[in-house]
Amino acid sequence: MNHINKKNVIITGVAGMIGSNLANRLITNNYNVYGIDYLEFNSQNLLKKIAKHNFSYFNLDLSLEKNVNIFYNKIKKIHFESYWHLAANSDIQKGSENSNIELRNTFLSSYYSVKICEKLNIQKFCFFSSSAIYGETRNKIKETHGPILPISNYGAMKVASEAFLSSARFQIKDILIFRLPNVIGPDVTHGFFYDIPNKIRRNDIVQILGNGLQKKPFMHVDHLLKIILKIYKIKYLKNINIFNVGPGDSGITVKKIINLFISLKKIKNTKFLFQHKKNGWQGDVAKYKFNNSKILKLCKFNIPSSEESVVKTIKEIKL
Amino acid sequence: MNHINKKNVIITGVAGMIGSNLANRLITNNYNVYGIDYLEFNSQNLLKKIAKHNFSYFNLDLSLEKNVNIFYNKIKKIHFESYWHLAANSDIQKGSENSNIELRNTFLSSYYSVKICEKLNIQKFCFFSSSAIYGETRNKIKETHGPILPISNYGAMKVASEAFLSSARFQIKDILIFRLPNVIGPDVTHGFFYDIPNKIRRNDIVQILGNGLQKKPFMHVDHLLKIILKIYKIKYLKNINIFNVGPGDSGITVKKIINLFISLKKIKNTKFLFQHKKNGWQGDVAKYKFNNSKILKLCKFNIPSSEESVVKTIKEIKL
Repeated sequence: MNHINKKNVIITGVAGMIGSNLANRLITNNYNVYGIDYLEFNSQNLLKKIAKHNFSYFNLDLSLEKNVNIFYNKIKKIHFESYWHLAANSDIQKGSENSNIELRNTFLSSYYSVKICEKLNIQKFCFFSSSAIYGETRNKIKETHGPILPISNYGAMKVASEAFLSSARFQIKDILIFRLPNVIGPDVTHGFFYDIPNKIRRNDIVQILGNGLQKKPFMHVDHLLKIILKIYKIKYLKNINIFNVGPGDSGITVKKIINLFISLKKIKNTKFLFQHKKNGWQGDVAKYKFNNSKILKLCKFNIPSSEESVVKTIKEIKL
Repeated sequence: MNHINKKNVIITGVAGMIGSNLANRLITNNYNVYGIDYLEFNSQNLLKKIAKHNFSYFNLDLSLEKNVNIFYNKIKKIHFESYWHLAANSDIQKGSENSNIELRNTFLSSYYSVKICEKLNIQKFCFFSSSAIYGETRNKIKETHGPILPISNYGAMKVASEAFLSSARFQIKDILIFRLPNVIGPDVTHGFFYDIPNKIRRNDIVQILGNGLQKKPFMHVDHLLKIILKIYKIKYLKNINIFNVGPGDSGITVKKIINLFISLKKIKNTKFLFQHKKNGWQGDVAKYKFNNSKILKLCKFNIPSSEESVVKTIKEIKL
């Protein structure tokens, strides 16, 4: 890697959709990227999309204590500007059936990430948290919302990660917590926007989880990263800063998304089946809305609506 | 044990001050108590104070997955009314120096407690959380306070425990979370009220951590358990109910407590030394105040002040 005039960052979960896009953006912005992943989603494809220059890849399970030292010994001579922690279990439904998956992949990966930063004396930590921490809420959720009562193991382990990170503030001086909505893009590795195109391609019947009235905010990965990189560059007075990074609208329903798929992709023969229940699965938050006034104040540009993100994504997906 | 006309409960951390007192109260109230502890604080003494009848003791490290099944197989035929989870690391200062202690003893013990309840189909979970979850706050803290940003590993792992418990609501229908202030009594096993009498007895110089101006709410274990057992009997509409269980005053300073020790115990020759720093240790919350209006509404009786609890405790301590 070319170390001249370049800054170094670590990205965990680098083979995911958000991680691989973030890596490319940071490489374009003159950073050397050290990426960690464990390829549980067979996401070698996304890894291949990351620029070859100024990128080093480490295949590492961050939920194991021993890997803290193994990784440390490989990169201990390098000074890092920041640590971007995106690694987590991303199959929320599976994690709701087996909490050990969330314990390991969502919480312990954060716990040992903090340990890595402490050993390397990395002073800036960017954590990708989730709207799932809030559980079921009524009004537009502010970052100061309490009490925090998640309904999924995934949400719980994101809360646990935020809390442990908060207690590490004496070692890590600058902590940014991004609470994300449903993030989408053509490279999604799991979930609704991954399953539907696959089923349409195979001419399968599409079984929708839930009654289709679930209504959630969506954001395209391009918009998300544009906002986050803007937030990253600001100097803050406080040690820890939390941001709901999403549109401020009340979201878009599953039914509406399917109709957009049908009209934009001119789908004719695919059959969509719905269930008679409100939530897609146990632990699914069927409806929520972000109050995003904090990011609106910081990022002076227009934040696209959920529908704009969905339309952009559908257009980008190749059937 | 006599199972006729008795109800069964499990108490973890039963050999601690709160646990052993709770066990005796529940036994007096006609319960069979199944107590779990790991005796890390050499607290055999408190175990001996628990009534012999209607009490079964299990020496078990709850931070280990294998012990879920070991315990389950011993008591699987019994129906339990509730699970009282008090086990945690209680040396907060030590846990701030080594987060693995808090990970295991404060969080994983909660994680596997939830697993035990799910296996045994226990429908009521009483969790002893802490004011430490709130971190540094300015005003009187309500249960709805947010964001939750603890400054100690102990606080972080209590947050993690609350969050995981919250996500278990589909299996455990009735969850009570008690957020405690500094709880004291003649049987404390660690901390300020344990160290000071020991040092006075040995005629040691007493080195106070911090400048003595730390000001926190205190509650005597007798008062605490009276309130908690009252809250326990109420029927709630919601799945999860959280209570700040403490006095609503702004606490009592360390200096004031020492003066009360000196005057009530007629101490003459002991020298007290203070440090020049605000916090006792890294992670110590030097000042906080509870908003306790929620328990005031439920418990119609008078809630003693911090000073009343401190005076009662000092009077009960034998020097």
